[in-house]
Amino acid sequence: MPRALSKHRARVWRLQAGALRERTDVLAGEEPLEVRALHRGARVWQAVTMRTPGHDFELAAGLLFAEGVVRSSAAIQQITYCADSEQQYNVVNVKLRVPPDTKQAEAFRVVSSACGVCGKASLDALETGGLQPLESSTVLEPDVLYGLPNKLRAAQGLFNATGGLHAAAAFTAHGELLCTREDVGRHNAVDKLIGWSLLNAVSLEDAVVLVSGRVAFEIAHKCVNARVPVLCAIGAPSSLAVDLAQRFNLTLVGFLRADSANVYSSPHRVAIDSSSGLHS
Amino acid sequence: MPRALSKHRARVWRLQAGALRERTDVLAGEEPLEVRALHRGARVWQAVTMRTPGHDFELAAGLLFAEGVVRSSAAIQQITYCADSEQQYNVVNVKLRVPPDTKQAEAFRVVSSACGVCGKASLDALETGGLQPLESSTVLEPDVLYGLPNKLRAAQGLFNATGGLHAAAAFTAHGELLCTREDVGRHNAVDKLIGWSLLNAVSLEDAVVLVSGRVAFEIAHKCVNARVPVLCAIGAPSSLAVDLAQRFNLTLVGFLRADSANVYSSPHRVAIDSSSGLHS
Repeated sequence: MPRALSKHRARVWRLQAGALRERTDVLAGEEPLEVRALHRGARVWQAVTMRTPGHDFELAAGLLFAEGVVRSSAAIQQITYCADSEQQYNVVNVKLRVPPDTKQAEAFRVVSSACGVCGKASLDALETGGLQPLESSTVLEPDVLYGLPNKLRAAQGLFNATGGLHAAAAFTAHGELLCTREDVGRHNAVDKLIGWSLLNAVSLEDAVVLVSGRVAFEIAHKCVNARVPVLCAIGAPSSLAVDLAQRFNLTLVGFLRADSANVYSSPHRVAIDSSSGLHS
Repeated sequence: MPRALSKHRARVWRLQAGALRERTDVLAGEEPLEVRALHRGARVWQAVTMRTPGHDFELAAGLLFAEGVVRSSAAIQQITYCADSEQQYNVVNVKLRVPPDTKQAEAFRVVSSACGVCGKASLDALETGGLQPLESSTVLEPDVLYGLPNKLRAAQGLFNATGGLHAAAAFTAHGELLCTREDVGRHNAVDKLIGWSLLNAVSLEDAVVLVSGRVAFEIAHKCVNARVPVLCAIGAPSSLAVDLAQRFNLTLVGFLRADSANVYSSPHRVAIDSSSGLHS
């Protein structure tokens, strides 16, 4: 059975006014997780990630999906902790019904190891791998966007306690919270969220995803891959995240605040006041 | 010749008061970098990382050091961009004088792919790989610590412009800035900093490293590996980063502010007011 999100109590010395005073602090848990994909008893793929224990099955599913090993939850037969291992809660076995989707997985590998890699080549490889532009006609009201950061903070339990976690949340286009996930690794938080949607058959095709930090290439890629049409961040996007968003018609929002935001691509999914309009 | 840190101008729609207004924004550059280690003409190691172009040779050197492929700059004969490639500025060749240090590199691999991985096993593997506790007798005055965040911010050029970069800086024990490096990836910023120290033969054995974000296992590991005795972060540490710091006698400081900080391990390197003392 999956465990709850882990946290640890630690001794800490508080330095203030030239003195050190001991007290207890709460830290975000971090341990390695090994994910193994098995088909007909044979190991066909594996990876290790440092993560905050908790929602490990979702993380495993999300990681397999992000890496192109599976294309849908239908490809997954069973997810279990590894009963053979002493550290069974850090090893997850995923039994596949079908062999890994090698075309997808290879497309990803091209991104990661081609000679002469560049941003454009990375985007081309995603297209060659079959990634299609997003077609969602979702439109968000500005007030819905502005309200998301507060909803994320309200939903974050461990983050508030430790300050040490990244968070990712999915909302409907009306701003209703669908799910929030946290992790010491920003990629893991997104993988857990997308794994949750896979394992619970919740489509994200009209959803908004909000991340607590910044958005670089891989986070944007994970969202396009999961068909999320709107990705928002409290922080800044990188140049390649914006390039990817433009290429695949993802609405990418950065610096999201309670009364403002920057829209870096596909602004047609943000409803604007008809009297002020889109000044472009 | 290495390029300067890259940034990109992008069109952005500013959402405020229900209207979208177009303007220009500056983004942190992000592109893949392929690093190849060569010995006697044969490729012996390679990796690809998404990074902000700039200080690429330092990143390559720091990455090889962090992964245990080289143990010192003496092992590196030459670093060049790949002249054969169209995307030559995204491929770096590192010629080694000696074959990769397989014992170190394997120790790292144990951490990343052992069956039954756990936090303790990861730390044990580092010890087995030859990582020794830090012995530096560096002591820092609290006022020196408190002053570091402002010095980092003052030194950060691109970060201030884009808000999209992680930063890592090295200081002397008296708070003098030695070097600061920025990147869209937090690991890369630290690899660049440590690569700088390697390529310029600047020892970090009595230095303080400050990172702009949080500290998880890998960042702490990179610093112990580079013999940095004091690691400070503006954000929170993870549980495993603290475990590693305790095991290897690294002074780990989190939530560093202008008048306070949390010390998670080895507090003896923080000078305290003798009248108030160490309350432990």
